[in-house]
Amino acid sequence: MVEIVPSILSADFTRLGEQVRDAETGGAGRIQIDVMDGHFVPNITMGPLVVEAVRRSTRLPLEAHLMITNPQEYIQTFAQAGADVIIVHQEVCPHLHRVIQQVKATGRRVGVALNPSTPVFLLKDVLSLLDMVLIMTVNPGFGGQDFIPETLPKIVELRRMLAERNLSCDIEVDGGISEKTAASVVKAGANLLVAGSSVYNQRETVKQAIERLQRAATSERL
Amino acid sequence: MVEIVPSILSADFTRLGEQVRDAETGGAGRIQIDVMDGHFVPNITMGPLVVEAVRRSTRLPLEAHLMITNPQEYIQTFAQAGADVIIVHQEVCPHLHRVIQQVKATGRRVGVALNPSTPVFLLKDVLSLLDMVLIMTVNPGFGGQDFIPETLPKIVELRRMLAERNLSCDIEVDGGISEKTAASVVKAGANLLVAGSSVYNQRETVKQAIERLQRAATSERL
Amino acid sequence: MVEIVPSILSADFTRLGEQVRDAETGGAGRIQIDVMDGHFVPNITMGPLVVEAVRRSTRLPLEAHLMITNPQEYIQTFAQAGADVIIVHQEVCPHLHRVIQQVKATGRRVGVALNPSTPVFLLKDVLSLLDMVLIMTVNPGFGGQDFIPETLPKIVELRRMLAERNLSCDIEVDGGISEKTAASVVKAGANLLVAGSSVYNQRETVKQAIERLQRAATSERL
Amino acid sequence: MVEIVPSILSADFTRLGEQVRDAETGGAGRIQIDVMDGHFVPNITMGPLVVEAVRRSTRLPLEAHLMITNPQEYIQTFAQAGADVIIVHQEVCPHLHRVIQQVKATGRRVGVALNPSTPVFLLKDVLSLLDMVLIMTVNPGFGGQDFIPETLPKIVELRRMLAERNLSCDIEVDGGISEKTAASVVKAGANLLVAGSSVYNQRETVKQAIERLQRAATSERL
Amino acid sequence: MVEIVPSILSADFTRLGEQVRDAETGGAGRIQIDVMDGHFVPNITMGPLVVEAVRRSTRLPLEAHLMITNPQEYIQTFAQAGADVIIVHQEVCPHLHRVIQQVKATGRRVGVALNPSTPVFLLKDVLSLLDMVLIMTVNPGFGGQDFIPETLPKIVELRRMLAERNLSCDIEVDGGISEKTAASVVKAGANLLVAGSSVYNQRETVKQAIERLQRAATSERL
Amino acid sequence: MVEIVPSILSADFTRLGEQVRDAETGGAGRIQIDVMDGHFVPNITMGPLVVEAVRRSTRLPLEAHLMITNPQEYIQTFAQAGADVIIVHQEVCPHLHRVIQQVKATGRRVGVALNPSTPVFLLKDVLSLLDMVLIMTVNPGFGGQDFIPETLPKIVELRRMLAERNLSCDIEVDGGISEKTAASVVKAGANLLVAGSSVYNQRETVKQAIERLQRAATSERL
Repeated sequence: MVEIVPSILSADFTRLGEQVRDAETGGAGRIQIDVMDGHFVPNITMGPLVVEAVRRSTRLPLEAHLMITNPQEYIQTFAQAGADVIIVHQEVCPHLHRVIQQVKATGRRVGVALNPSTPVFLLKDVLSLLDMVLIMTVNPGFGGQDFIPETLPKIVELRRMLAERNLSCDIEVDGGISEKTAASVVKAGANLLVAGSSVYNQRETVKQAIERLQRAATSERL
Repeated sequence: MVEIVPSILSADFTRLGEQVRDAETGGAGRIQIDVMDGHFVPNITMGPLVVEAVRRSTRLPLEAHLMITNPQEYIQTFAQAGADVIIVHQEVCPHLHRVIQQVKATGRRVGVALNPSTPVFLLKDVLSLLDMVLIMTVNPGFGGQDFIPETLPKIVELRRMLAERNLSCDIEVDGGISEKTAASVVKAGANLLVAGSSVYNQRETVKQAIERLQRAATSERL
Repeated sequence: MVEIVPSILSADFTRLGEQVRDAETGGAGRIQIDVMDGHFVPNITMGPLVVEAVRRSTRLPLEAHLMITNPQEYIQTFAQAGADVIIVHQEVCPHLHRVIQQVKATGRRVGVALNPSTPVFLLKDVLSLLDMVLIMTVNPGFGGQDFIPETLPKIVELRRMLAERNLSCDIEVDGGISEKTAASVVKAGANLLVAGSSVYNQRETVKQAIERLQRAATSERL
Repeated sequence: MVEIVPSILSADFTRLGEQVRDAETGGAGRIQIDVMDGHFVPNITMGPLVVEAVRRSTRLPLEAHLMITNPQEYIQTFAQAGADVIIVHQEVCPHLHRVIQQVKATGRRVGVALNPSTPVFLLKDVLSLLDMVLIMTVNPGFGGQDFIPETLPKIVELRRMLAERNLSCDIEVDGGISEKTAASVVKAGANLLVAGSSVYNQRETVKQAIERLQRAATSERL
Repeated sequence: MVEIVPSILSADFTRLGEQVRDAETGGAGRIQIDVMDGHFVPNITMGPLVVEAVRRSTRLPLEAHLMITNPQEYIQTFAQAGADVIIVHQEVCPHLHRVIQQVKATGRRVGVALNPSTPVFLLKDVLSLLDMVLIMTVNPGFGGQDFIPETLPKIVELRRMLAERNLSCDIEVDGGISEKTAASVVKAGANLLVAGSSVYNQRETVKQAIERLQRAATSERL
Repeated sequence: MVEIVPSILSADFTRLGEQVRDAETGGAGRIQIDVMDGHFVPNITMGPLVVEAVRRSTRLPLEAHLMITNPQEYIQTFAQAGADVIIVHQEVCPHLHRVIQQVKATGRRVGVALNPSTPVFLLKDVLSLLDMVLIMTVNPGFGGQDFIPETLPKIVELRRMLAERNLSCDIEVDGGISEKTAASVVKAGANLLVAGSSVYNQRETVKQAIERLQRAATSERL
């Protein structure tokens, strides 16, 4: 079941509540919140206060994608702020297993994100514990970047690893997802497609955008 | 001339544009935006995207208070996002003079913030270059904290240093400013009073809150 | 040959000499000393002074397990303090080969430890140089944690890698080793079993504990 | 009232309980525990486990002198382990006021330590909140170093600052305290004298050493 | 086509222009410049100023081998200083794909270096983007070290990975390259051999040294 | 006695030996070598290899100005490379007294440098141990910058502190020193004037430049 996940990184921050409700009305099944600390990535975006504000605006599950260098210090805070899924980056977690345990201890679902250059087999020893792997399809830090095609084999490889071990974890992709690229990532094995600037754009409603992406994502599957 | 500076840290993030316009209509002369990176302070809040959103909502001058450990890397970004005053912390700037030069090179006004434990005389050698000194009256990181009375002598000392050297720099205070504490900081020498939870509260309009604080701040001066 | 390695992390620090001698009398063939710096792991424990004190109390070989972020700066110190085996973590050594060279240059034996989430194949290019690999079976930082069963396949994989390349390096495990788990790690391929709270407990002598664990470790092998 | 404070840094770690009881019997009024993390100082020593062990051995107040770069993360742990006074270093606390608040929130007494090169006037804005200032009379890291005479004027200056503001905070000194130097620091204004290798030595009992230092410390005062 | 690449790390810095021209006259096809920051490696060597000086002395392509922890901040600077190939270390780039994009955006060729302990398969997801992989055959930091034979299988493995994917990237080696080791690395698959102390020595001209190494490198190939 | 100190930062690196000899012939009494690590300052320049090369070219005393964040790790190396004076920055030395002791232990003279924003009174407790204080008159990192006039009062203040305590330490200045600014710093109290681009320029010989600066420096003194 393929799902488009609106990221509020490209939403209008002057009226975030409305933009989130548009996503819910538009058929989104969950919302992604991009937390950047200006250390792991060269941008600072939002934190627990924004998660709380989004939480008050929708009943959809919220994903907190932590693009920060010290996620172990903020797990509790984001869980309390209302995140349902907490995603940390492999690249900053020498104690990745412990961080996964921390997220699970809060009762939230746990995801691990991989940069475009990070091999999926580095997750080998924790894969059975994960609810989701997020394969970054751009280098994290900004909205509106071009999809990196070299990431497609990674999705394929991960899907195969999951199948071989009979694991049911989600594969999410994030970055450059549009009408042009959606089908390819789905074909490769992704089932959750984060979309920022493709969903929140000036040319159509959020509902129209989500439906258009959803069609594109599944069309070539036939 | 004493001025109340609403901080959006305590505003409702689901409708930030409206909250900012309320501050403008309510008589505010500028707006403060609290940028936290989760490294200098134990909280992550907002960054350039929020500055841009606020910029589109008001014509008031915007202050970006950078509670981040590497401000030198973000000066240009915040200037372009629409900040009119850029405030960096003394505690994280071994090259404070260079950072001040960087801000001035963007054409913005420059402020330096001091934590409650940081002596004002550490600014001695750069004071003549500053548009503002921000004396933190709580430890930075969260809204809604109690005013620290030990910071009052620092305001007095700074006001005297400025007078002795005939400098006209603003003295801003931030943290625990309310009807009870406003007069004391003004008496000590502050002229810009940041207020978050006292301005954005459930009991009154933003306009009422600003006027109430303004009255409190100046009443005992007579 | 399977061996129980008492860790003094769970010993009584008011009478360490006695506790170490109990281990020697109890049949231990070596002692492990858990060095934590509060940076690599969220606990601070002991350092060279404790190694020296243990050194004066026994003639058994001592293993210094360095759970610290800058082991390259302390190799010489621990060698001089009396450690016979020095174990560093892969996760903090971008120059792992150099650190191994450093240990060898002191004449000590060298081990590399892997966190539960760190794949064993990351040791591929240094494996032939090692005297020991330490597979952490809990996340390092504290005594008394539960064994992580997901680490068993790592032991199996490492034992196979060693066999394929005809290498004779020890496989040590550390964390949650008890009567219940000892046999499984031995079966998987481990031959050195660090035990802390299972050895130093209130219910029996250190000798009884070591013998009980030794029996458990080897029983199911038959 | 001048007091000698034995530091267990020079005690025999094979029989710490006994060594601590010797100090108590010998007339010590408190015990100092030197926590080093190998990052703030070039040595790793001991942590909460040792505090707990000492706590079980004596009813004397315990001082935890945290020579670590991130004390804010360990305040709670050392308080629970049994420390009565928690001392942090000014050099590593950009948010020194917050750390002081943290210690006070645990109900423990709070001290701030200054390296030999750190001016006492940097404590100006927090002095009224402190129970103790610890003037390091050697560079922290090791026992048995020579007293640095340049630190005497700092003690004098601090004593004067306290007197001028009518504050009753203790002045502790640490490093190179012996029969030769004790009187000079007392004369300068110190009232708590940490002694390690002078107390725990091979030539006399701990009781004899404490009494000898006590006499030396107060003799020239007459 | 095997090529000897003189590294100026072992050149005479009092007359660098001359030494570089000697390399050019001696038949070198490119020059390597070893940039060390004292943080990634325990030595500080040279930076953009030296690249500029070498640039003025020769028309040969220049390789800047960045042994620094924050290469992303210096790509632009080294490109402008005159480097034709920019080589970064995998070990310090959590965002390796982005750094590669950065180098490509300057129009320069891009290489990635691997320490002796870093497996080549970690480059799997970026290999198709690279102009060169540099396999370190000593631990980086100093000239004149002994060749590490354990690195030979890495060269073989990388050559096979490239062949399997039909990629034409260069394989460079650096460290301990001499008459004795040159043939073995070429046989393993390397085609660019950095040589420092073997090229700049007291016993022969640079031309003689390059020719001697060239012969050694290709002799056993026959 | 006022002295011009040529800095090789602006020399021609293709013929450093010659440029250094030009300085010696030109009447310089010492040479400054600007070591930058790309971490303390945004530039990487040179290290021990360059000090050795300069050492072989002249018998003049050499000053190594360490603009690096971890000077304590490189004192020994620079002493052995041939530096006669080792200068560290106050801003990166929480254990400044220890670093000073380290330099003295090598038998070299010791200096401490202050950035334009760093108050001189922070040196209060170590001043009597120093051979030199270096007041930066630009922000360190690059040659050819404009002199910062706000630094003049610092020189005056330092000269007064030295006089009051009857200390004979040198006052060196570095940055923007030219015919225009030389007299003002001398008048303020400096006696060693580092000059880079004013000495190594295209318009005159090094000898002419040094003599011109020397005249300018002392002219207005009459």
